[in-house]
Amino acid sequence: MVDSYIRLLALEDRAAIENLIASYGPLADSGDASGIARLWTIDGTYTVGGFGTATGRDQIARLIDGPTHQELMRNGCAHVLSPHAIALDCDQATATGYSIVFRKQGDRFEAWRVSANRWQFLRTGDGWRVKHRDNSPIDSSDAERILLRS
Amino acid sequence: MVDSYIRLLALEDRAAIENLIASYGPLADSGDASGIARLWTIDGTYTVGGFGTATGRDQIARLIDGPTHQELMRNGCAHVLSPHAIALDCDQATATGYSIVFRKQGDRFEAWRVSANRWQFLRTGDGWRVKHRDNSPIDSSDAERILLRS
Amino acid sequence: MVDSYIRLLALEDRAAIENLIASYGPLADSGDASGIARLWTIDGTYTVGGFGTATGRDQIARLIDGPTHQELMRNGCAHVLSPHAIALDCDQATATGYSIVFRKQGDRFEAWRVSANRWQFLRTGDGWRVKHRDNSPIDSSDAERILLRS
Repeated sequence: MVDSYIRLLALEDRAAIENLIASYGPLADSGDASGIARLWTIDGTYTVGGFGTATGRDQIARLIDGPTHQELMRNGCAHVLSPHAIALDCDQATATGYSIVFRKQGDRFEAWRVSANRWQFLRTGDGWRVKHRDNSPIDSSDAERILLRS
Repeated sequence: MVDSYIRLLALEDRAAIENLIASYGPLADSGDASGIARLWTIDGTYTVGGFGTATGRDQIARLIDGPTHQELMRNGCAHVLSPHAIALDCDQATATGYSIVFRKQGDRFEAWRVSANRWQFLRTGDGWRVKHRDNSPIDSSDAERILLRS
Repeated sequence: MVDSYIRLLALEDRAAIENLIASYGPLADSGDASGIARLWTIDGTYTVGGFGTATGRDQIARLIDGPTHQELMRNGCAHVLSPHAIALDCDQATATGYSIVFRKQGDRFEAWRVSANRWQFLRTGDGWRVKHRDNSPIDSSDAERILLRS
């Protein structure tokens, strides 16, 4: 029975991490900067390829409040996260997948940014939180391929 | 043991709702109007931003049989539903995520419609069904942001 | 208790299949041909609409090492698999959903290929593997509609 209980917990962990990843887009696209920040641990980091690394919740919140994101929201945007391959390891987890940012351009939609993503999660007293997210845009460099292989 | 059983049920509920959302696209893109209608409760509703609200299975089936959808299907279309953040509450559930309708235009694909979605589900004697789906296209209005925040 | 255990196993099967599908993109986009091949059974098949059918792991690996895929990778590509509707049947399973291949074109992204997908899986001694994947591009033909209905 102990074994079954541990396996039930692992499935719940997986569901919680799926929900966390799936909540990023709705929080981002509704401009909820503090909601986004709370997805991360207090000292969590977020590397956005081409922009740099935000460290800690204040800096992560500022990505949402900053001019690039606010300009995206003005015209309408959708941060769509794909299903991720998830690997659990006790109180840590990783997930690998894609993000696509669609933006409204005139009367049509554009895939403005397509990126590879690798997330590291920690189980905290408040549930699963992001320790680090690495977002690397798809291009002719090897950055995203190294990330997808890791 | 009772607690573990309830938690197992919750994971099965989540899986059933994921399957329901993931079956929308294949049913829509293969023109299965009655199959789409049966995803909803008998008096379920579907608000399609810019088109209005369909009430009950007959009206929902007519969205698929209607000229806009049939024209989409003629050229080829894919109704892709993103992973959703799912919240269970006993015999009810909600899910928030995105839909992207790709259509074939000549020799290329276009993201014709990108929308925020909020679903309400009910557990019925026949399994989980959609009580209401609210689909709000991404644009410069606040409609989709209000939906994503709810 | 036996019943609960079987249901726990079914949820684990579902999670394993979700992870398998979600790992296709990262393996493909990082050029891991042997990693892709190992997702299939030894004699597994992969029908790529417009290209033909690859039979067995060597031929499936060659899809990744071949000129079309290598050209995609040179400019940057993302093979994004949508959430799939999954049906388990003991040691077999099927999944239906979509794939979108984005490619970098100059300074923008293009949805180069949007397809309907139907996967058949087998439980093997090494875990779940793909017995057959059928990929049918979205177009004005009925091929993808028949696949989505099956």
